[in-house]
Amino acid sequence: MACSASDLAPLLSTTVNSTEAATYLCSQFGSIANQLSDTTYAVNNTYLLFSAYLVFAMQLGFAMLCAGSVRAKNTMNIMLTNVLDAAAGGLSYYLFGYAFSFGSPSNGFIGRHFFGLREFPSSQADYSFFLYQWAFAIAAAGITSGSIAERTQFVAYLIYSSFLTGFVYPVVSHCPVKSDNNLLFGSGAIDFAGSGVVHMVGGIAGLWGALIEGPRIGRFDRSGRSVVLRGHSVSLVVLGSFLLWFGWYGFNPGSFLTILKSYGRTAVTTTLAGCTAALTTLFGKRLLVGHWNVLDVCNGLLGGFAAIIAGCLIQEDSA
Amino acid sequence: MACSASDLAPLLSTTVNSTEAATYLCSQFGSIANQLSDTTYAVNNTYLLFSAYLVFAMQLGFAMLCAGSVRAKNTMNIMLTNVLDAAAGGLSYYLFGYAFSFGSPSNGFIGRHFFGLREFPSSQADYSFFLYQWAFAIAAAGITSGSIAERTQFVAYLIYSSFLTGFVYPVVSHCPVKSDNNLLFGSGAIDFAGSGVVHMVGGIAGLWGALIEGPRIGRFDRSGRSVVLRGHSVSLVVLGSFLLWFGWYGFNPGSFLTILKSYGRTAVTTTLAGCTAALTTLFGKRLLVGHWNVLDVCNGLLGGFAAIIAGCLIQEDSA
Amino acid sequence: MACSASDLAPLLSTTVNSTEAATYLCSQFGSIANQLSDTTYAVNNTYLLFSAYLVFAMQLGFAMLCAGSVRAKNTMNIMLTNVLDAAAGGLSYYLFGYAFSFGSPSNGFIGRHFFGLREFPSSQADYSFFLYQWAFAIAAAGITSGSIAERTQFVAYLIYSSFLTGFVYPVVSHCPVKSDNNLLFGSGAIDFAGSGVVHMVGGIAGLWGALIEGPRIGRFDRSGRSVVLRGHSVSLVVLGSFLLWFGWYGFNPGSFLTILKSYGRTAVTTTLAGCTAALTTLFGKRLLVGHWNVLDVCNGLLGGFAAIIAGCLIQEDSA
Repeated sequence: MACSASDLAPLLSTTVNSTEAATYLCSQFGSIANQLSDTTYAVNNTYLLFSAYLVFAMQLGFAMLCAGSVRAKNTMNIMLTNVLDAAAGGLSYYLFGYAFSFGSPSNGFIGRHFFGLREFPSSQADYSFFLYQWAFAIAAAGITSGSIAERTQFVAYLIYSSFLTGFVYPVVSHCPVKSDNNLLFGSGAIDFAGSGVVHMVGGIAGLWGALIEGPRIGRFDRSGRSVVLRGHSVSLVVLGSFLLWFGWYGFNPGSFLTILKSYGRTAVTTTLAGCTAALTTLFGKRLLVGHWNVLDVCNGLLGGFAAIIAGCLIQEDSA
Repeated sequence: MACSASDLAPLLSTTVNSTEAATYLCSQFGSIANQLSDTTYAVNNTYLLFSAYLVFAMQLGFAMLCAGSVRAKNTMNIMLTNVLDAAAGGLSYYLFGYAFSFGSPSNGFIGRHFFGLREFPSSQADYSFFLYQWAFAIAAAGITSGSIAERTQFVAYLIYSSFLTGFVYPVVSHCPVKSDNNLLFGSGAIDFAGSGVVHMVGGIAGLWGALIEGPRIGRFDRSGRSVVLRGHSVSLVVLGSFLLWFGWYGFNPGSFLTILKSYGRTAVTTTLAGCTAALTTLFGKRLLVGHWNVLDVCNGLLGGFAAIIAGCLIQEDSA
Repeated sequence: MACSASDLAPLLSTTVNSTEAATYLCSQFGSIANQLSDTTYAVNNTYLLFSAYLVFAMQLGFAMLCAGSVRAKNTMNIMLTNVLDAAAGGLSYYLFGYAFSFGSPSNGFIGRHFFGLREFPSSQADYSFFLYQWAFAIAAAGITSGSIAERTQFVAYLIYSSFLTGFVYPVVSHCPVKSDNNLLFGSGAIDFAGSGVVHMVGGIAGLWGALIEGPRIGRFDRSGRSVVLRGHSVSLVVLGSFLLWFGWYGFNPGSFLTILKSYGRTAVTTTLAGCTAALTTLFGKRLLVGHWNVLDVCNGLLGGFAAIIAGCLIQEDSA
């Protein structure tokens, strides 16, 4: 109800009505504060939702990067795994993953509430938060798919992918120790916003996958020398890398979950990290192997983005 | 003008000035309320504009899905129809379509105001709303283009596309009956946010187009058995499907037109519907034809998204 | 601190406390106004950041447009230049470009402050603003890359690109004369939001590049007749054009930098300009050369977008 001078004036005119006047004024303040709180919530939700959409767009990036990096005959297979990272991951994160990650009561290892989003939303978290976390979880699976490309049976991959998104990633992201000054022989370690839970988990899963499966047939010749197996489309690799760059703007700046805390510095730092790494790779490879190569530059670019995540968020936090 | 204690104090100090004090205070409240209203409008507009951009991104999705699904020789033709769905549709929706949809005065069949956006914006609708509606209208045309691919003359398609966006879609979306408990033999029917007006219109137009044009030459052999005409790029099909998934986040959650009413649940339901349909198709096709196929999974995914539209919006509405 | 009737009532009850009452009330107003100001800032920042992401997405568009327009053998080279437009441009704009553009104190030619973003953010500009300006700067380089495709040495291009983004573009965008009624023989000229600084700079750089390098080998036969050198993928050209269209929604409506001033009209005008230009090109080329061509339509579309920039912003400004 809007403030009305003709209602308020009589209340202020005699000291007898001071309680009524105060109540009137405070209810005015309360009403404005409520509306403001709704609006602020709406801004933060808009920010979080669109950041989640950008993080989802990284799946397009992973898919195109993989598509371009494999030989044409393997496109069909790797495209299927990429679509299912998102689709099977969506179901397993909804049924189990979110509960293992964020359910309370929990112990230090695993949560156990919100299975299938029962009794959700809670006072702590909303559907937008779930969507954002899901987009993170499937990103971990997306990272892995490249490391075991061209030599993985589809059914094995499907089981692995659901298990990673529904169990492994949630358990790691549940871990309450995000920052510890005693880790790594006293130098301290901080995990922030997907640096460990997404990229370390995805990377280690990919490393083990590659170790277990071994190199692709024909990757080394009889004398053990490396044979380059060229991907079939550099355009798709670049499209994928740019889409990942685009999506990273949801990943890093979005990780504050609200816009009221973060104002673009994270986005700038992310950009500069990728650019610097791309140029370093460009010139480094030129010195080492003697030619300029766009595929190396794309790899360097993505490496730079992955490397800066925790750093750029801490920087903002302490600003 | 900011609140000033030195101005306000004398007004409160004697009962003589109570009217002035009340006026002063109410004008303060009024000023804050106006600013808050501007900010709230800005949040909703940001949400609506970026949702419209995402819905527009579905055109990229349709184009890439079509490009990958046709044989290489037909790429040029289908790309032209896809670009013109958006471009010719933009003009015809601006000149006629919006007026037929939203013009008042109107009868139950058609509106007749706002031709070429004359006397626009009105108190009910802003340019962002127009943009959002345009993006919906061209999505209906985009749906159809796939069903008559590889066998449609360009000029015929151009006339059809402008007519669909400028006349057919507007008339259907003008229809005042969005929800009726007596339809379908008493079970009731609800249309919400593009479920009927976009996907039903696009689908029925596509069905009639396919019926009239008949199968592609070579689609069946002499004995009438089906011959698979493979598309030329599975990567483009997956790119298109993912882009449509991305755009659907503008389509479904955006359909509330404001962020103040909708908070992510629609986005989550949309995601889960697509994921479930993709997996159902994956395993269903495996049982039926014996192999895993990414093209089927993409079709299933998109079918799931289309099927959930009305449902996920109603769910949010009743929450 | 929320308004409390029990605190406020005693202050209003006697005239002795009128100063305290006024102070109490004004501090309530001040607190709400501060929160509202934070929220408004957050809306504008959300709008600016996501607009910057869309402008960045134009790099994907340029890359795909170039990739599709060149012959397959040149894909690797042009993809490298496209990635480095963004990456090398990122560093040079950070180190020098922004300082030349926006540094103060400055003279009419060049700024000289904020090198490497030292003493940044200032009271005038935030990191989101930097990101938005960077995305504009690399767009100028992206425009050029197409005009010198298939005949430029990589190292030369890298030097040119860094120089354009780090020096040429900043000097032009620093120019204080954005609008002058006496220019062009008294007809007046207005530059607004990238129309001159991005598209004119990029276009003129491209023209000079093309003049200096001359036509591609084989572009004209011995008798001087034009030989069409077809690009290798019409799908990629359409993908690139649509991505540019998508990104243009960050470019034009985003140029107001805040959502509180701009409400969608710019987005609608941009859309209609592109659509009209696409159709004009379609029918014009049909009349001139006798066939329908999607590549021409894409060129027309992009020309329409580039042509409308200053116009659609002025229109909004005067509304």
